[in-house]
Amino acid sequence: MEFKFSNKCKNLKPSAIRELFKTIPAEGAITFSAGNPSPLSFPVEEFAEISADIFKTSATAALQYSVTEGYPRLIEQIQARLKEKFFVGKDFDRTIITTGAQQAIDLTAKALCNEGDVVICENPSFIGALNAFRAYNLKIVGVDMEDDGISVEKLEKALKENENVKLIYLIPTFQNPSGITMTLKKRKQVLELAQKYDVCILEDDPYVELRFTGVPEPEIKSLDTDGRVIYCGSFSKILSAGMRVGYLCAHEDIIAKATVLKQVSDTHTNIMSQMLASRFMEDYDLDAHIKKIKDLYRSRCSLMLYCINQCFPDCVKHTIPEGGMFIWVTLPEGYDSAAFAKKAMEHKIAVVSGATFLPNEGEVSRSFRLNFSTPSDEDIVEGIQRLGDLLREELGIKGRGR
Amino acid sequence: MEFKFSNKCKNLKPSAIRELFKTIPAEGAITFSAGNPSPLSFPVEEFAEISADIFKTSATAALQYSVTEGYPRLIEQIQARLKEKFFVGKDFDRTIITTGAQQAIDLTAKALCNEGDVVICENPSFIGALNAFRAYNLKIVGVDMEDDGISVEKLEKALKENENVKLIYLIPTFQNPSGITMTLKKRKQVLELAQKYDVCILEDDPYVELRFTGVPEPEIKSLDTDGRVIYCGSFSKILSAGMRVGYLCAHEDIIAKATVLKQVSDTHTNIMSQMLASRFMEDYDLDAHIKKIKDLYRSRCSLMLYCINQCFPDCVKHTIPEGGMFIWVTLPEGYDSAAFAKKAMEHKIAVVSGATFLPNEGEVSRSFRLNFSTPSDEDIVEGIQRLGDLLREELGIKGRGR
Repeated sequence: MEFKFSNKCKNLKPSAIRELFKTIPAEGAITFSAGNPSPLSFPVEEFAEISADIFKTSATAALQYSVTEGYPRLIEQIQARLKEKFFVGKDFDRTIITTGAQQAIDLTAKALCNEGDVVICENPSFIGALNAFRAYNLKIVGVDMEDDGISVEKLEKALKENENVKLIYLIPTFQNPSGITMTLKKRKQVLELAQKYDVCILEDDPYVELRFTGVPEPEIKSLDTDGRVIYCGSFSKILSAGMRVGYLCAHEDIIAKATVLKQVSDTHTNIMSQMLASRFMEDYDLDAHIKKIKDLYRSRCSLMLYCINQCFPDCVKHTIPEGGMFIWVTLPEGYDSAAFAKKAMEHKIAVVSGATFLPNEGEVSRSFRLNFSTPSDEDIVEGIQRLGDLLREELGIKGRGR
Repeated sequence: MEFKFSNKCKNLKPSAIRELFKTIPAEGAITFSAGNPSPLSFPVEEFAEISADIFKTSATAALQYSVTEGYPRLIEQIQARLKEKFFVGKDFDRTIITTGAQQAIDLTAKALCNEGDVVICENPSFIGALNAFRAYNLKIVGVDMEDDGISVEKLEKALKENENVKLIYLIPTFQNPSGITMTLKKRKQVLELAQKYDVCILEDDPYVELRFTGVPEPEIKSLDTDGRVIYCGSFSKILSAGMRVGYLCAHEDIIAKATVLKQVSDTHTNIMSQMLASRFMEDYDLDAHIKKIKDLYRSRCSLMLYCINQCFPDCVKHTIPEGGMFIWVTLPEGYDSAAFAKKAMEHKIAVVSGATFLPNEGEVSRSFRLNFSTPSDEDIVEGIQRLGDLLREELGIKGRGR
């Protein structure tokens, strides 16, 4: 039969999404295209121990239906950690566990937005969020990034020019894909604009625990006074991505709606994983575990930046992240990173073209994303050298070879 | 701030849903209100063994991001089982893993329906599905049940009278809440009507493996010739509900849309759980495991039916299920089961009023649902006796006491 799909499906291009997640780099390719944490960040032995104990002592709780809000002890632990470490969580806020931060984004959009409503986001931004918004038939308006975060002038212009703006979606810390961190000054300005134009901010903060250098900027949520900042985070980058445990911390009115929407979406998040996360925080030292991940990423990021400085032509720009998992490389005016990424893949280096992260699909990007959390030191050295050679070739620059 | 929620949220009453799932029966109450499988159905020792082995041999695969479609080996196993046991799955069909069958229902509605579109369902029906439809602002039209399944005449009337019907949602086997199984004759008639009026059928089949007596009726999906039957199932009732692993088997065009929608909803289903289910099917005897569950439920259902026949007044009717987890009890004309359920709770027996399962919220129901998968034999005997006494008291019937 001829299926009639919903309007919501119309704006979703399977190919664009799937390309990113399913890119199977050529045999023997060096992969800088991943969005994955390092497998070295998974506490395998600890999880094996906890898991064995749960099956011994609390198997029924781990395998039976549970409440939609999430495992109560884990919610307490998250709230305590958010409050102590990041000053996130006011008296009017509540927290629920979600099936990854992806679901937190999805539920927020579903709770707040009607078809045709506008979501403003950074340009470029996280493809998973952009597609979640597209899947509710929302209009996405991208606002250009600067070195210190989103352009505040352009943000105000977008707020002025668009009716029915419901949400400003931001990844203020170690942004995906750019690696940029928004300054405190801008965070305050953005919050003021949200107040002035009476819209909510969705602060997506999956990388905040991965700061390996520099001084932390306060979360926008910590500056929230009236509940307009909706905050989501995840255990994907600090314990396990495959276990799909994230959380949404927001005003209780929003959490009440999100909880009902979550219930009809997947009843509750896998309970064993919630217990694993909770018990890990209870029985082991999460901060010590995160320190190991940060040490690893600091070292890999430094190595990648060193190689970039050695091997890339000066006219190729790049960000210098203070945490997270990504470096953002920008070619000179007139170049298309999609063509370059394709060329790189022919030379067995996988990078993700910036076009993937554009709010306006079909536009050309001069930038591409490099991931430093998964490749080995050897691959970083070899891969960045090869990319440098290829850049010089493509840009027609001679000299300063390896 | 004053939040402006989406139209989708308007039709969702948190209280109604939460009541069902969160009912905490009074201290010492006998609980016939659950929708849970028996904890005896969880293969705890087997899961502990498999889990230990996965952490030893495939920890990275179990903890890293995975593909949206699901763990490939598990998809193969489900497809093979559906084909061999139920003749479900044509050449044009594909299967994806979902975060419980609840997500399969949610994704189907999102893929096929615009706001205001009509979904026809059985009256009464599964509250989780009804609320998933409400959360997309769909119009739900209930069609009355008869002893052998949905009323075919009333179904055709509903198809004639309503424009934009996108979906007929059915639980043909051991329906929740009624326990009724649709006859083959009606399954064929329903499929013909779907073809005549060119709508899709969503066949929700979570209880199919739990037939403990009688002869199986073919799944509607097995009669499908043109891909209009969308089929969902779950491991919740045969391995673990808390692990949230279900599946959607449908025409490849629908699966393509559902996969993109799943990706933006939660990226993928918890991968460890998928591996547990897959390894259980690989290393252990799933059918032998299911046989144990069926033996238990057959025994509990028989006992409950025996006690009902002993203790309930003749004017109180009930279904005689051949599988699943529920018996549906109907009071004489003029009685309201919500009032009776409240009274029962005062007497420390928890049952779920039929009003919870009505497509038209606010209507009165004469029926209530009894669950036999979770209470012990002692609780069944004691609880049904007490319910019988209370029924006689409420209905003003004397004699035939315990």
